[in-house]
Amino acid sequence: MTTSLSETIKQLVTANHIVADQGVVDGFGHVSVRHPERSDRFLLSRSMAPSRVGPEDIVEHDENGAPLDAGGRAVYVERFIHAETYRSRPDVMAVVHSHSPSVIPFSISSVKLRPCYHMASFLNDTARFEIRERFGRDTDLLISDPDKGRYLARALGNASVVLLRGHGSVTVGRDLQEAVFRAVYLELNARIQTNAVALGGEIEFLTDEEAHAGTEANAAQTARPWALWSEQAQARRAMR
Amino acid sequence: MTTSLSETIKQLVTANHIVADQGVVDGFGHVSVRHPERSDRFLLSRSMAPSRVGPEDIVEHDENGAPLDAGGRAVYVERFIHAETYRSRPDVMAVVHSHSPSVIPFSISSVKLRPCYHMASFLNDTARFEIRERFGRDTDLLISDPDKGRYLARALGNASVVLLRGHGSVTVGRDLQEAVFRAVYLELNARIQTNAVALGGEIEFLTDEEAHAGTEANAAQTARPWALWSEQAQARRAMR
Amino acid sequence: MTTSLSETIKQLVTANHIVADQGVVDGFGHVSVRHPERSDRFLLSRSMAPSRVGPEDIVEHDENGAPLDAGGRAVYVERFIHAETYRSRPDVMAVVHSHSPSVIPFSISSVKLRPCYHMASFLNDTARFEIRERFGRDTDLLISDPDKGRYLARALGNASVVLLRGHGSVTVGRDLQEAVFRAVYLELNARIQTNAVALGGEIEFLTDEEAHAGTEANAAQTARPWALWSEQAQARRAMR
Amino acid sequence: MTTSLSETIKQLVTANHIVADQGVVDGFGHVSVRHPERSDRFLLSRSMAPSRVGPEDIVEHDENGAPLDAGGRAVYVERFIHAETYRSRPDVMAVVHSHSPSVIPFSISSVKLRPCYHMASFLNDTARFEIRERFGRDTDLLISDPDKGRYLARALGNASVVLLRGHGSVTVGRDLQEAVFRAVYLELNARIQTNAVALGGEIEFLTDEEAHAGTEANAAQTARPWALWSEQAQARRAMR
Repeated sequence: MTTSLSETIKQLVTANHIVADQGVVDGFGHVSVRHPERSDRFLLSRSMAPSRVGPEDIVEHDENGAPLDAGGRAVYVERFIHAETYRSRPDVMAVVHSHSPSVIPFSISSVKLRPCYHMASFLNDTARFEIRERFGRDTDLLISDPDKGRYLARALGNASVVLLRGHGSVTVGRDLQEAVFRAVYLELNARIQTNAVALGGEIEFLTDEEAHAGTEANAAQTARPWALWSEQAQARRAMR
Repeated sequence: MTTSLSETIKQLVTANHIVADQGVVDGFGHVSVRHPERSDRFLLSRSMAPSRVGPEDIVEHDENGAPLDAGGRAVYVERFIHAETYRSRPDVMAVVHSHSPSVIPFSISSVKLRPCYHMASFLNDTARFEIRERFGRDTDLLISDPDKGRYLARALGNASVVLLRGHGSVTVGRDLQEAVFRAVYLELNARIQTNAVALGGEIEFLTDEEAHAGTEANAAQTARPWALWSEQAQARRAMR
Repeated sequence: MTTSLSETIKQLVTANHIVADQGVVDGFGHVSVRHPERSDRFLLSRSMAPSRVGPEDIVEHDENGAPLDAGGRAVYVERFIHAETYRSRPDVMAVVHSHSPSVIPFSISSVKLRPCYHMASFLNDTARFEIRERFGRDTDLLISDPDKGRYLARALGNASVVLLRGHGSVTVGRDLQEAVFRAVYLELNARIQTNAVALGGEIEFLTDEEAHAGTEANAAQTARPWALWSEQAQARRAMR
Repeated sequence: MTTSLSETIKQLVTANHIVADQGVVDGFGHVSVRHPERSDRFLLSRSMAPSRVGPEDIVEHDENGAPLDAGGRAVYVERFIHAETYRSRPDVMAVVHSHSPSVIPFSISSVKLRPCYHMASFLNDTARFEIRERFGRDTDLLISDPDKGRYLARALGNASVVLLRGHGSVTVGRDLQEAVFRAVYLELNARIQTNAVALGGEIEFLTDEEAHAGTEANAAQTARPWALWSEQAQARRAMR
């Protein structure tokens, strides 16, 4: 069963509002979804703050990140994050790029982000991306061309999340609900691990087996928080 | 004096809204109350986010956690937390299960959660549950069957709170107001202890005697925050 | 120029709403003001959450903390904090008692709370109260009788703030605006110092001279935040 | 192209509301903009909380910080921060002064504030100001006369931000949007660095080259968060 294009666009707009309302993105960051009918394309807002996105702002992009129907409107500089992730990961149906604040410390610290509880079990295989390794010490850190997108996708590998040093993170899911779920719990787990480290004792992280089992258990549960977050985001929008 | 069933259901709905509004639960977590007329049964919402629960969502469960009037609606996977707690603890009238974020670090750290101030005096005897001890290293950490519920209840013993490693906590009370009070101050005390540890000096926790005296003093005061939290939760719901 | 009794009551109600809205108190904590016409009396709400206080809830108390016009309504167990502070400190015109969360760690840690910035210069002489020193290791920590109130006032001495181990703080001011100002910046300074300590370097606190100069400079500025906080508190009340 | 005076005043009012709404200022702190027609003058609110500022509260100040049209209304004690910054830095078109809480620890700690991610690349050259060096150990820390303003401007040098020990920060921009952008991300970066330090590992900050490249990339992006923050601030004002 395929979701229709108009329904997919509607869900993508909701996803934009949720990640903003949950503090995963502010004026920056973006969410995309693979095109429901053409797997070599994806849908992504034109360049604007996610909380302000409406259906009319969604732009179709091709496999190289070129906008097909922008009509002269500005598109995101970092659209290549999405294009190259979809190309290299056929299993990925949705992508969130964020600078959520609790995650940044793990992108610049030698301390590894690890799953502290079952909600964040997908963090078991978190990848890291150091732009300097290939592009030198004088970039603006942005994934602003296909080549950088390609190396980022390579760093992501088969993981659910890749941390971009001094920049943020990219989170993927098998559908929009899963990608949004993960983006929210990535931020929460980062805050939890920071506090756990601050306690100074020994920490027991999830085992690989627990993480795998938890990821499957969570996959069946993403509709519940989506319904809640969607309701909350719409309520706060209505107050504007 | 027994509270009527309809009044109990109303209070349980309010308790759901309070724990959501106070940040104790998000899309996940649940609150239950022992049935006012049949002490071998308990009331618990169908499977949904607590902030969205209404009276029509409350389902009666039997002593084994089987829903009696769900009418085909999905029930919580972890209802056995409640069933086995009520079975083993006749003094317990209400149960909160939560993943509140400041508490998770104490579930995975070797540092013990302890009462920092009189509001959290009930933490004096906090118990811990390590699912691996009996169920191995490859579970999804969920309390998804009666056997796991039983071992969790055994770990709880006579305590007010049990921390589930890599998962969350279970808090009990002699009535709904006390269980909710404790769930809120559990989260606050965890944040306070984390900050106290970060200061790096010596910490003076409550003595056992102070904790016991404080717990009794607090028992007389749970109506005051309940009135406030209830008002706040309803106000925010009205804005939706 | 003396403020009239009705105007004083109105300001005390506003003070209650501000300390709640600013997160200084939750369901617990209280604010009082010395009676504008009878300096041996003070005004304090009946026992309830500060955010819910209205003019009709204000009760006149005598110098021993006895309510004069409660008409059978419950009064705060800890009214002796206020009574004994007013008795021992003729310069004090208003008192805030709070359990604000960033302050509790300093009440139980060997690390001393100190003024980190000019807004909190009044913390230069912060006092500490250990109830065990006189009342033993088995109290419920509450200031529930005149004798405890007296020893707390003795601990406060000429300071602006006294930290009660495992309990909270008492903040005094030369008027309501100053007491509220200090209660808010006490909490903020505690958070700031916690973060400064976490950085791990050397910390430069205010000198005594800077603190004294800052306290006088701030005394002329308390109307500005009061106007803001009052507006914010009333706006949020209007949404209920 | 010069923005008209009335448009500039409108933007300055919005800037005041944004910095308040984003938690950069509370009852204290201020924002100014260089006069669009007379580069030796600047616009700054009369003395009041930024969130309450309207167009009628904007006062024109001359190069020495003297108000030209206050009409007897109180002006900010620290207007010399702005006057002396505009005098010494012809490239600066807007100035924010703030006590935002995550930044204060870096003003009193020996640990240096550094850019953790591209959004805060402008922090590469952050300056520090120690009032004691010239004005002794008994000031009230305020920049309350032209001489203090001058020494502060000297400390700022060519940097984007100067930290005032035990006081706060001053942030400058090439236009209002950039100054506000920097004031918000200064606070965020401070929180991020505090958490990164708490993790205890090695930290990789931005290189000088990355910081310079990032600052130019961000300059093209300040309109996006401004549009979002402006909308959010106006929405919350409408609820009053």
